[in-house]
Amino acid sequence: MSQPETGRPFYNLLAGSSLDRLAAISDGIFAVCMTLLVLGLAVPAASGVKTESDLWRALVDLMPSAVTYFMSFLTLGIFWVAQQTQLSQVERANRNYTWIHLAFLLAVTLIPFSTGMLARFHWSRVALIEYWLNIFVLGLALLAGAEYALRAHLFPETQVRTIIRAIRRRVYSAQLLYLLAMLLCIFDTHWSIGVIVAIQLNYAIAPPIPLLHRL
Amino acid sequence: MSQPETGRPFYNLLAGSSLDRLAAISDGIFAVCMTLLVLGLAVPAASGVKTESDLWRALVDLMPSAVTYFMSFLTLGIFWVAQQTQLSQVERANRNYTWIHLAFLLAVTLIPFSTGMLARFHWSRVALIEYWLNIFVLGLALLAGAEYALRAHLFPETQVRTIIRAIRRRVYSAQLLYLLAMLLCIFDTHWSIGVIVAIQLNYAIAPPIPLLHRL
Amino acid sequence: MSQPETGRPFYNLLAGSSLDRLAAISDGIFAVCMTLLVLGLAVPAASGVKTESDLWRALVDLMPSAVTYFMSFLTLGIFWVAQQTQLSQVERANRNYTWIHLAFLLAVTLIPFSTGMLARFHWSRVALIEYWLNIFVLGLALLAGAEYALRAHLFPETQVRTIIRAIRRRVYSAQLLYLLAMLLCIFDTHWSIGVIVAIQLNYAIAPPIPLLHRL
Amino acid sequence: MSQPETGRPFYNLLAGSSLDRLAAISDGIFAVCMTLLVLGLAVPAASGVKTESDLWRALVDLMPSAVTYFMSFLTLGIFWVAQQTQLSQVERANRNYTWIHLAFLLAVTLIPFSTGMLARFHWSRVALIEYWLNIFVLGLALLAGAEYALRAHLFPETQVRTIIRAIRRRVYSAQLLYLLAMLLCIFDTHWSIGVIVAIQLNYAIAPPIPLLHRL
Repeated sequence: MSQPETGRPFYNLLAGSSLDRLAAISDGIFAVCMTLLVLGLAVPAASGVKTESDLWRALVDLMPSAVTYFMSFLTLGIFWVAQQTQLSQVERANRNYTWIHLAFLLAVTLIPFSTGMLARFHWSRVALIEYWLNIFVLGLALLAGAEYALRAHLFPETQVRTIIRAIRRRVYSAQLLYLLAMLLCIFDTHWSIGVIVAIQLNYAIAPPIPLLHRL
Repeated sequence: MSQPETGRPFYNLLAGSSLDRLAAISDGIFAVCMTLLVLGLAVPAASGVKTESDLWRALVDLMPSAVTYFMSFLTLGIFWVAQQTQLSQVERANRNYTWIHLAFLLAVTLIPFSTGMLARFHWSRVALIEYWLNIFVLGLALLAGAEYALRAHLFPETQVRTIIRAIRRRVYSAQLLYLLAMLLCIFDTHWSIGVIVAIQLNYAIAPPIPLLHRL
Repeated sequence: MSQPETGRPFYNLLAGSSLDRLAAISDGIFAVCMTLLVLGLAVPAASGVKTESDLWRALVDLMPSAVTYFMSFLTLGIFWVAQQTQLSQVERANRNYTWIHLAFLLAVTLIPFSTGMLARFHWSRVALIEYWLNIFVLGLALLAGAEYALRAHLFPETQVRTIIRAIRRRVYSAQLLYLLAMLLCIFDTHWSIGVIVAIQLNYAIAPPIPLLHRL
Repeated sequence: MSQPETGRPFYNLLAGSSLDRLAAISDGIFAVCMTLLVLGLAVPAASGVKTESDLWRALVDLMPSAVTYFMSFLTLGIFWVAQQTQLSQVERANRNYTWIHLAFLLAVTLIPFSTGMLARFHWSRVALIEYWLNIFVLGLALLAGAEYALRAHLFPETQVRTIIRAIRRRVYSAQLLYLLAMLLCIFDTHWSIGVIVAIQLNYAIAPPIPLLHRL
């Protein structure tokens, strides 16, 4: 509460200091994105469906889209858990930390777009790389948040070294795996998609296999 | 806070531990799904409506869709209350418990799709069984959450046996009723829909009739 | 926590007891509805707009829709404040109280539909009566919630008589005014719309005029 | 809790007093708006895209829309932080304060519409002035909230003078900058858009340059 004379710096001291509201808007944005993703699964048009087997075939035709949407739900789930983990460790927020997370949330809102791109153009390296870039920016923003929190002393002093090491290791290893999966599109984009789903299932399920924990 | 050397296991200890944020994203997803459901009721096109009686007839034509959407709002309401009840009983969350609930939420986001399917193809057993499967997965995920919470000691020790028995009995009886309702589609899908609505009204209204409480 | 042997009644004792989560899902549903309302204002098509005056005329053409959407935002705002007021007075929730509010929220999710109807068919008594019915059900559900809370002893005992009298008087007077406004559609639906907007502005602004406070 | 006999004034004393719920509905509306903004980036149609370079060109064609959406995300972020800052300073809410913020939220829900207008008609002064008006109303509503809070003694007495001075200075300087940016549309609307983005990046990043802090 220093420098009350200068106005702007004082305003900036007040601004963005609520961790609760940062968590609330994050949960809201993730919730809307997760729901809209699956809405992308369009109900088949009534005109083309006259029998039970027509409808069955229409559902089977939705499978490629369903895989992409499932992958994106996992993506959003993983980054929601990751952000929740980071926010649960910081003791307070400030305006810079809030804006780093708003940049993270901007990347979150782009996931439905990237998903729609990949669902429609699953053969395309441009679409795949755009999707990977989106994941890359998500990881980068989370890491930037943690590094900023480190320098601005937002983590509790007694835990800070353990926390930052765990977050760094997690982001580095995950982003390395995503990069390798993306590079598989040199051969075929469908390999990349399959490997990304496998990586994400590993993070979601966290099987008790020591080797995978080293990743 | 053990094992700070290993990184990943330590990260996983921190991850997904906030019950508040799990509740918040759940409320967000349920809220978006419930609202989008009823948006599925399309306002009649202006071109076909010249008189009051045209509009009245257009509203009457919306009735089959309205029944399906009403049923799905009840479905979402029932599972929202059920999840709220479970979350209010656990003392804390962890990453596995959080991911079981994210799987539950994935099934929640599929309800608008399943509803759209059933509203458009109410004559179809494929659509009905798809809808039933969605409800089945919702029940399964809730039960999996409760069973995991039991083994991971997330419930308070003094209440745990009573809580798990109440949850199990509720899931088993409800899923048995839904299964019977689904099987009626052997005769006619509309019977199934009618019985599902009746089951759900029973759970929503909870009439003070001892026989129904035994179900 | 009585009757742990019977299962269902015990389950129902646990169910729906969180006021916080009832408030959270309500805020979510109101937020989505309020946002989707104004999304109903379609951006003019690029094809018909070549000059500044084309765009100006296209904006002016949106005015009738804008009035309806403004009215519905006020409707949602009024009922959001009214529900918040009631929830802030009860000391706890139970499953029946929660389901009464879920019925209230079902009516809330219908407001975008009713608004779309009235925006497109503002000349129609059917559309106007459908809109009025929606407001009527909202008021009815709020009153049912308050009357149930009275009988189930959810209000604090020392304040209960003052609270219930204030809520009843508010619902009765507001619904009487809405009924009178609706009946004006015998002459012209646009009179009804104008009077409803006036009533709602009165409730939003709450001008310090004693006569209006008596209403 | 005075005047329990009069009903309405007593009702109005109870109404809208929850700061938590005002924050919650605000976060919900901002979350939905921020997500819907970026959904405005339509995935290219499959029919026009046969090769990787088709898709690349389709992405490049999206750039003008992407700039507008990025600008609007920043707008929403800035006003979300500003509202959060104000709400974190008031000690309590009342019904009038709540309604001023509902007017603010009405303007928030208009941002996706204004953004769609500007994305489609970026050459148009009408669209640009409509966008500026939306920002102007957002600033006006925030200032009205702060001025009302001042007169209704909602700020803590010991801090009130410093707080109101900081908020006023911030709103005046920001609105002055937006006005100057808008006036540039006398020459070219694209200059206005560029300058608005620059102003918003300044507020988001808050570079440690004393001159900019004076603005």
